[in-house]
Amino acid sequence: MACEKKRLAELAALVQGELVGDPEVLIGGVADFDSAVEGEITFVADLKRGARLDECKASAIIVPTAVTEISGPAIRVRNPYLAVARIHALFVEEPFVATGIDARAVIGHACHIPAEVAISPLVYLGNRVRLGQRVTLHPGVVVCDDALIGDDVVLYANVTIGHGCQIGNRVIIHSGAVIGSDGFGYATDGNGHHVKRPQVGVVQVDDDVEIGANTCIDRATFGKTWIKRGTKIDNLVQLGHNVVIGEDALLVAQVGIAGSVTTGNSVVLGGQVGLAGHIHLGDRVMIAAKSGVINNQEPGAMVGGIPAIPHKTWLRSSAAYAKLPEMVRELRELRRKVAELARAMTPGADDSPANNE
Amino acid sequence: MACEKKRLAELAALVQGELVGDPEVLIGGVADFDSAVEGEITFVADLKRGARLDECKASAIIVPTAVTEISGPAIRVRNPYLAVARIHALFVEEPFVATGIDARAVIGHACHIPAEVAISPLVYLGNRVRLGQRVTLHPGVVVCDDALIGDDVVLYANVTIGHGCQIGNRVIIHSGAVIGSDGFGYATDGNGHHVKRPQVGVVQVDDDVEIGANTCIDRATFGKTWIKRGTKIDNLVQLGHNVVIGEDALLVAQVGIAGSVTTGNSVVLGGQVGLAGHIHLGDRVMIAAKSGVINNQEPGAMVGGIPAIPHKTWLRSSAAYAKLPEMVRELRELRRKVAELARAMTPGADDSPANNE
Amino acid sequence: MACEKKRLAELAALVQGELVGDPEVLIGGVADFDSAVEGEITFVADLKRGARLDECKASAIIVPTAVTEISGPAIRVRNPYLAVARIHALFVEEPFVATGIDARAVIGHACHIPAEVAISPLVYLGNRVRLGQRVTLHPGVVVCDDALIGDDVVLYANVTIGHGCQIGNRVIIHSGAVIGSDGFGYATDGNGHHVKRPQVGVVQVDDDVEIGANTCIDRATFGKTWIKRGTKIDNLVQLGHNVVIGEDALLVAQVGIAGSVTTGNSVVLGGQVGLAGHIHLGDRVMIAAKSGVINNQEPGAMVGGIPAIPHKTWLRSSAAYAKLPEMVRELRELRRKVAELARAMTPGADDSPANNE
Repeated sequence: MACEKKRLAELAALVQGELVGDPEVLIGGVADFDSAVEGEITFVADLKRGARLDECKASAIIVPTAVTEISGPAIRVRNPYLAVARIHALFVEEPFVATGIDARAVIGHACHIPAEVAISPLVYLGNRVRLGQRVTLHPGVVVCDDALIGDDVVLYANVTIGHGCQIGNRVIIHSGAVIGSDGFGYATDGNGHHVKRPQVGVVQVDDDVEIGANTCIDRATFGKTWIKRGTKIDNLVQLGHNVVIGEDALLVAQVGIAGSVTTGNSVVLGGQVGLAGHIHLGDRVMIAAKSGVINNQEPGAMVGGIPAIPHKTWLRSSAAYAKLPEMVRELRELRRKVAELARAMTPGADDSPANNE
Repeated sequence: MACEKKRLAELAALVQGELVGDPEVLIGGVADFDSAVEGEITFVADLKRGARLDECKASAIIVPTAVTEISGPAIRVRNPYLAVARIHALFVEEPFVATGIDARAVIGHACHIPAEVAISPLVYLGNRVRLGQRVTLHPGVVVCDDALIGDDVVLYANVTIGHGCQIGNRVIIHSGAVIGSDGFGYATDGNGHHVKRPQVGVVQVDDDVEIGANTCIDRATFGKTWIKRGTKIDNLVQLGHNVVIGEDALLVAQVGIAGSVTTGNSVVLGGQVGLAGHIHLGDRVMIAAKSGVINNQEPGAMVGGIPAIPHKTWLRSSAAYAKLPEMVRELRELRRKVAELARAMTPGADDSPANNE
Repeated sequence: MACEKKRLAELAALVQGELVGDPEVLIGGVADFDSAVEGEITFVADLKRGARLDECKASAIIVPTAVTEISGPAIRVRNPYLAVARIHALFVEEPFVATGIDARAVIGHACHIPAEVAISPLVYLGNRVRLGQRVTLHPGVVVCDDALIGDDVVLYANVTIGHGCQIGNRVIIHSGAVIGSDGFGYATDGNGHHVKRPQVGVVQVDDDVEIGANTCIDRATFGKTWIKRGTKIDNLVQLGHNVVIGEDALLVAQVGIAGSVTTGNSVVLGGQVGLAGHIHLGDRVMIAAKSGVINNQEPGAMVGGIPAIPHKTWLRSSAAYAKLPEMVRELRELRRKVAELARAMTPGADDSPANNE
């Protein structure tokens, strides 16, 4: 356990929550509602999910401010998830332990490596790599020539950082992610052969970004592919060359973004979303999972579908989609009726028996 | 060759098939229909595919029971693919060869490693890792602290197993797969910054599971992400935190499953399917490739589309989709005709020349 | 810098372009329009993008032949991207430097390795691996037994080449890609258990192919999965067992192709496209991003949608899709009006006040 037991009052103060009940209750950890035991604190984020407070075995509980009937011990907060994140981090975050450079790591020449690092066996650093303070490199990590890694960065197993790429402070990159592969850029000659365009830019990842397992971020053709501060990227995401993602974005798993797309801050892209090349998303754009976006989007736009349309329209269109076979039938029936009416109104125009209706 | 030649009668008995023709024919291997030569057995699964039995150069053939006119040598079985799988395995499966721990592997302290293992160079095991009997670890594999690996497991090159994760017996994990990366969990603070929620659970993979190349399975926030016995997962699949997949499922390539999804047994998810978080799929649910599912599904449901609807409806809706431009035209035309009819029936209501029709 | 400065006239000759202005201008590199400085050449591919030639600080510019008013120094060419690719390559391509086999690489027995190679630390070669001339293997690369690697191949960090796979000349494979993982092939027994079908084929990658980061190409069940000359594959693509991709194809990121698909030459698959198993795409087929194709496609076909339909129809259908809610309303309205008209024409048939209109 990374920290000692804490009084409930301390935890309430940490998250600026309202303490309910005994402030002296001692808490030693966090668990989810169903598995929490005495000595732990748990939480409910949404009472509608059926959690029954009287069944909980935890010593304290974090609840939304809407919960008023509770007698404690509890902490009432506006955002239980946020409070849990902060309290949980307090209990589980381990202090950095500098193990130095393992003898079985491979270090190039002219690297700059502070004393306070933890470099595992089987790590490879190229030449002129610069590491910040308290960097942790897990086994199998490859950092190529001239890359720059900030303070407090964690690169998990088998991550590759391409040459010249720049990783900010407190960045976390999960296993197998590839930062700085070549962009997918070719020019096609007269014989239909695709001639590779040199990809000479880099990837810049700013502070507090987290990047998921096996995600790929291509280097720019010229200049830089750029992920700005605080953006969180899930697993198996693809970012093409020269993409610029603003601050505090959320990119859910398997998103694919074509070259030269740019976004404002705080965009949210659902899982498996695809963005066509060269478009721009304004601040706070939200895109429903599996959508394909081919046009610029205004700040705050919520869109869905392939190609994406306003989210409200998409909800109604997709509901109507399930009724399409019925619509086809109705349309056929209406056509028949209208033809009958037309015939009925123009006696003698044809010899259809419909005239006799 | 892993095994010696076998008499056709032995092979027929192995797969509980009906022997046709000479039982003494000797078979030394399996090949597909077009490339099989003398001494080999081949198969046809579906005669409609145009295979002509008289062109086959194999010494024997496995056919469906529906094929009655064959004179042999042959084996008639209900499921040719299954028979081929079993007979082929007999010929190609090599006995395990314990090469021990290569000196260029890196082994942490307090690991439990049986004598009968095959650990390649450039493998990394953390501390307190426990391996079962006859485990094969290919180069570049990283198994982190406190992980547990069952008997007869094969981890191919560059696989990462996160700390504390548990892998059952006879599990096969292909190159580059990442088991136990952090779940994608954040709480957003008042400034719009995403605060990481600690991900303290594990991944449990049960017996006889196979996991494809570069697939990612996130650890649980609390508790475990759980893949049950016999499930087969293709390449580049994403499973979020706290997902539970039942037994004997098939997850085709590039499937993405959001956090806390649970499924019954024997579900089949087509390629590139996406499942929204927190839903449940009953036993034997089948989902068409590329679909997006946002609701619970009853056992046996077959669905397709984005969002997914019953498969039969989806087939008809998607057929109608191609006719939408025509429907738009017809609707416009009908509107025009109905307006004309209405005007014709109310003389004097307007001065439209349509009244004169 | 890989090469010395070049006279503009030389560069124009290299790309068979028309020289405009001073042929003696010396050029030392390539940069994009916004960042180019004196001594560099830049380009505009499309004047509509708003580039203003008089703002450019480069010493020369490559322009499309349509640009006639330019006074130089410039090179006019039919395809600026192609000209830039060739000129840029001239400046940035480094001559191969043979560093030999690093002592910290692991080499199996009976390998064939020329003197002129660059094998990094932490590379693993299995037994009987054959490398061509001037092969570059980055750290973490794993090449399994009996694999064959052609001349001038570059395998980036943590690439895995499965046993027996064959890689042609001048192939580039980016970090984390897996060539030769097992195909996803099972036969299901009477208990619903999936029995693994041995995957005994290989992957053959022909000359001048490029394969993106974390892309997976499965080995064939029998025979070979085959990527033909000049095809370019982006990141995170999945190719199933026995797939055959023709020459000069472009497969954009996150494409997924099921088993036994075959294609002609010069096909273009947009990002996140999925192809169902066993279909064939003719030469030059183009598939819009995110589409799902379930049928054979004639040479030159352009298709889109899920399931894919002719691209022109798809454009109109997807436009109509956004109007579906409106169509539902109009259909309802028409139904009402037609019923009214019908009632009006048959007085006494009901007592609806509609009769009085």
